[in-house]
Amino acid sequence: MSEINILEVGPRDGLQNESLTFSLKDKQEFVLKLASAGLKRIEIGSFVSVQAVPQMAETGSLVEHTLSLQKAGVIPKDVQFSALVPNRHGLIEAVNRGLQEVAVFAGCSDSFSRKNINCSIEESFNIYVKVCEEALSKGLRVRGYLSVAFGCPFEGIVPEDRVVELIRKMKNMGVYEISLSDTMGMAHPAQVESLLTAVSKNISLKEIALHFHDGQGLAFCNVWAAWKMGVTAFDGSVGGLGGCPYSPISVGNIPTEGILRLLGRQSEEKRINKLTDIISWLEKKVGRPLSHRSTTSFSPAALKSLPFSVASSNSSKKGM
Amino acid sequence: MSEINILEVGPRDGLQNESLTFSLKDKQEFVLKLASAGLKRIEIGSFVSVQAVPQMAETGSLVEHTLSLQKAGVIPKDVQFSALVPNRHGLIEAVNRGLQEVAVFAGCSDSFSRKNINCSIEESFNIYVKVCEEALSKGLRVRGYLSVAFGCPFEGIVPEDRVVELIRKMKNMGVYEISLSDTMGMAHPAQVESLLTAVSKNISLKEIALHFHDGQGLAFCNVWAAWKMGVTAFDGSVGGLGGCPYSPISVGNIPTEGILRLLGRQSEEKRINKLTDIISWLEKKVGRPLSHRSTTSFSPAALKSLPFSVASSNSSKKGM
Repeated sequence: MSEINILEVGPRDGLQNESLTFSLKDKQEFVLKLASAGLKRIEIGSFVSVQAVPQMAETGSLVEHTLSLQKAGVIPKDVQFSALVPNRHGLIEAVNRGLQEVAVFAGCSDSFSRKNINCSIEESFNIYVKVCEEALSKGLRVRGYLSVAFGCPFEGIVPEDRVVELIRKMKNMGVYEISLSDTMGMAHPAQVESLLTAVSKNISLKEIALHFHDGQGLAFCNVWAAWKMGVTAFDGSVGGLGGCPYSPISVGNIPTEGILRLLGRQSEEKRINKLTDIISWLEKKVGRPLSHRSTTSFSPAALKSLPFSVASSNSSKKGM
Repeated sequence: MSEINILEVGPRDGLQNESLTFSLKDKQEFVLKLASAGLKRIEIGSFVSVQAVPQMAETGSLVEHTLSLQKAGVIPKDVQFSALVPNRHGLIEAVNRGLQEVAVFAGCSDSFSRKNINCSIEESFNIYVKVCEEALSKGLRVRGYLSVAFGCPFEGIVPEDRVVELIRKMKNMGVYEISLSDTMGMAHPAQVESLLTAVSKNISLKEIALHFHDGQGLAFCNVWAAWKMGVTAFDGSVGGLGGCPYSPISVGNIPTEGILRLLGRQSEEKRINKLTDIISWLEKKVGRPLSHRSTTSFSPAALKSLPFSVASSNSSKKGM
């Protein structure tokens, strides 16, 4: 079975979509827990304007603290940390704090790009070309995000050839991996198959990651469709932190543990159990249940452990 | 695209898993609404012991009322109604009320069979052979359910060859369609692909229906995997009625509108909108939100209609 390559975005995409803002201390604890749970790629923050995204305040201090823990051997050496940088200013901050990986993020529609980062797609790429050049010259890795790749709330479906063209442009900047993001949770598995088919004619799917939000309960279905086509890199947020997936208009994050469960099944039991502890900790912080459903074990043992009185309320009464 | 063949089980599998028991009048209204929404196959009840399943009380009166509406032309002639029958007594009731289709239900594990219908698999088949014989002799269609086909809470994973053997036995009874039921919501898409591959060597998948419960958020994923293999018949419960799919241990029903959305997409818009009205009506009755998420439209138009202030809470803040 292929290796499941997870980028944990809970501390960034998760927290930035929570109304509650975590304290620096809580963020430090959260990141340490994630790194200790066996996650190897963690996006811990965003060097964006604190006015625009208050939840991402103190990303610099969080990065510094986390890297010091890693230097001290508290966090395993092989864990890779990254943060978003919208421009050169952000890059310099990231470099000064000692990060070895940053991520740039562009939209796949001008309308979304302007709402999201206040400039057109082309303008954002003009900035990112320079950011990448400088980052690479300083020895950093750069990851790229393409938002609303599966549909824009303002322009609707985004043409596949545009997405492919933007992937090419990012690739030419020297980005090592491009995360196609279903920002609105609009994607349908048939659409995933179609877009990935178009993409694979231009770039290896090994250089593509998928970032799904769960707008319609199809996020796992989309992950499965992509996995069957050879994609192995997926972004996830532990517990689905960041937006409640049960709201009709929510575009909550896909839960990391659910991706591991779907793709790894029993082979990921250990890591999933560690994440479950983190989810319980997070629930106390955010004050609502997170995506426990996808941490329910598939294993018969776990199902046997259910009191029948519970199972019976749903199935024993002439259940099908 | 293949025709999507839905059997609506809301009035039976949905209501029997709700704590609240609908009045006969409410059930009559519910069934009329479903039939008027364009659903062509509706399982409206179960001729089982009222002690065991109080929610299924008055199934006989419900059947009689519904068929009278159909005779009067209020309900389209091409809508097929059915009910579960556990034994000859149930069959006779169904016949006396004028039903033209009944369903028998057996387990795929002896432990579940004993808990569910108080006899072994073999004992249940000994009863069903006679029930089918009599039903067919009276000109009725008989459908068969195989419960816990994807895993039993007491015995764990059920061997594929046992499921195939039970399918053969049911087929030999003269059952026209066999519904493989993931009673516990345990199924994984890889398991669906594997079991259907084994089944297809023995029987056409056109004679197989799939009945998923959503124990882990993979029900749509399982439907998609089955659809890709050629299965077109699925059981669904409008709004996911019957158990809350958001509970860690719930095995809620898969929402009919979600199946139509996943498999039919825009082509099913009209029918889905009608079902959405029924869901709103049901929510008032059960006093909790049902699976609106899967009635969220995939169409860009609908997403455009979202106030950006709402979308922005999840996506505009440097969203990916």
